[in-house]
Amino acid sequence: VAAAKPLYPSPFVLSITQDRLTEKEFLGANDIRTAPFMPVSDEQTLRDAIGKIGTSAVLKTRRHGYDGKGQGIIRAPEDADAAWEGIGRAQALLEGFVDFRREFSVVGARSLSGEFAAYDIPENIHKNHILSQCLVPAKMPAALAEEARAIARTIADRLGYVGILAVEFFDTEQGPMVNEIAPRVHNSGHWTLDACCVSQFEQHIRAICGWPLGAPDRHSDVVMTNILGTEQDNWLDLAAHPATALHLYDKGAARDDRKMGHFTEIHPLRQRPKS
Amino acid sequence: VAAAKPLYPSPFVLSITQDRLTEKEFLGANDIRTAPFMPVSDEQTLRDAIGKIGTSAVLKTRRHGYDGKGQGIIRAPEDADAAWEGIGRAQALLEGFVDFRREFSVVGARSLSGEFAAYDIPENIHKNHILSQCLVPAKMPAALAEEARAIARTIADRLGYVGILAVEFFDTEQGPMVNEIAPRVHNSGHWTLDACCVSQFEQHIRAICGWPLGAPDRHSDVVMTNILGTEQDNWLDLAAHPATALHLYDKGAARDDRKMGHFTEIHPLRQRPKS
Repeated sequence: VAAAKPLYPSPFVLSITQDRLTEKEFLGANDIRTAPFMPVSDEQTLRDAIGKIGTSAVLKTRRHGYDGKGQGIIRAPEDADAAWEGIGRAQALLEGFVDFRREFSVVGARSLSGEFAAYDIPENIHKNHILSQCLVPAKMPAALAEEARAIARTIADRLGYVGILAVEFFDTEQGPMVNEIAPRVHNSGHWTLDACCVSQFEQHIRAICGWPLGAPDRHSDVVMTNILGTEQDNWLDLAAHPATALHLYDKGAARDDRKMGHFTEIHPLRQRPKS
Repeated sequence: VAAAKPLYPSPFVLSITQDRLTEKEFLGANDIRTAPFMPVSDEQTLRDAIGKIGTSAVLKTRRHGYDGKGQGIIRAPEDADAAWEGIGRAQALLEGFVDFRREFSVVGARSLSGEFAAYDIPENIHKNHILSQCLVPAKMPAALAEEARAIARTIADRLGYVGILAVEFFDTEQGPMVNEIAPRVHNSGHWTLDACCVSQFEQHIRAICGWPLGAPDRHSDVVMTNILGTEQDNWLDLAAHPATALHLYDKGAARDDRKMGHFTEIHPLRQRPKS
């Protein structure tokens, strides 16, 4: 397809971000901090990796993982076999545990002409490996936010990225550490629908069509909460809550932990004048 | 249809609001202030009406008029024949000119259970009888806004209305005067898409489906501007303007004065703390 028409994300972007190992190597090559990692292809390389990285560690498949799927935790060397069976003996990597204060993400757009515009940074609260809430803005020092935004921009530039990109971070003692690159509109940017003039969805279309990027300004503080599984049965109560925008995805079957929708609570900035 | 399924607006609402004369009579019967008016069905009744109401006055068809269509201004009695020909000798009414300071509208929703929720009031600026801009909030005394909202609620209650209703007002020396009832989502409420958690469109669906009404709270001051005719050719410049949400309707042919889209400029309330 890319040979006939412009395609975003490009095949190059996909080749890097579809494979956790390639992604980590790309980040390392660009001097961007990640968790320590080693490739794993069989029992022997897994033992070697545990030897080097230590425990606790996480064994992750190189491809097709999300929301904690395709992962196994190794708390001690004797967990290795079970974890290896658990991921179906797939090509994998072992990542060292990271001691972090919080998780956050930079959601930003890069245009065809190389402009970059990032939204304010949400703190992301996970439950059972699934994003539960975004708190916007994340409470963090301005310098840390700046550093994270600069890293996201570097990633977008080095990938020649066009469109919306999300970079997930750990906030660690050593500074911001990249957890994952999501080459797409991202769950942690859904609040932009309700708190920005131009949402991540419109921004993505603007970017890939070569239109000017919209300003990523935010008019309100926001808490976004995902609605998982049968929590959606409660939608009438959520709909009745003031200053709440409710989004249901009409997905049908409400499997446990499936993301069925989200709601944003809007706190207009006037309620907390900064001066 | 209404016999088989609930229908909103109801046939009763339509019978009143589709006919300017019936609408004015309904308002009069509820002691709601309007411009002076007289029915016109032929040359003789037109002359009588001019005799009673005086000039200047506006001759309006009873049905099918919008954006100044089906109207003719009578500045002096000798304009009568031309105006009568101009509206195609249709059943009509003559309305006296009203001396007003500004035009504004109340856009509100009434639920199945009789709840009523109105958005903040926009001042409406017209050019050539066509809505050009809404300034939100309208600069008006709180008491006047309260009175207008109460009138809109009375109208909704007396009509047994369900859904979004817009009531257009003149602000006159004598108080708020109703110009027109629009039994639908309304151009002067389009800014709610960008400045409220629940827009007039979602609110309408909530009302007619029997869901709880959303809070009509506004997080920002807004200026909404209609994009008429070939003004839409300028969309790239509008898209590049920060704090602006651009809405194009993809209507095709850009006839003169046809509403092709609108844009809202958002001014988060933080920029002007009230304290």
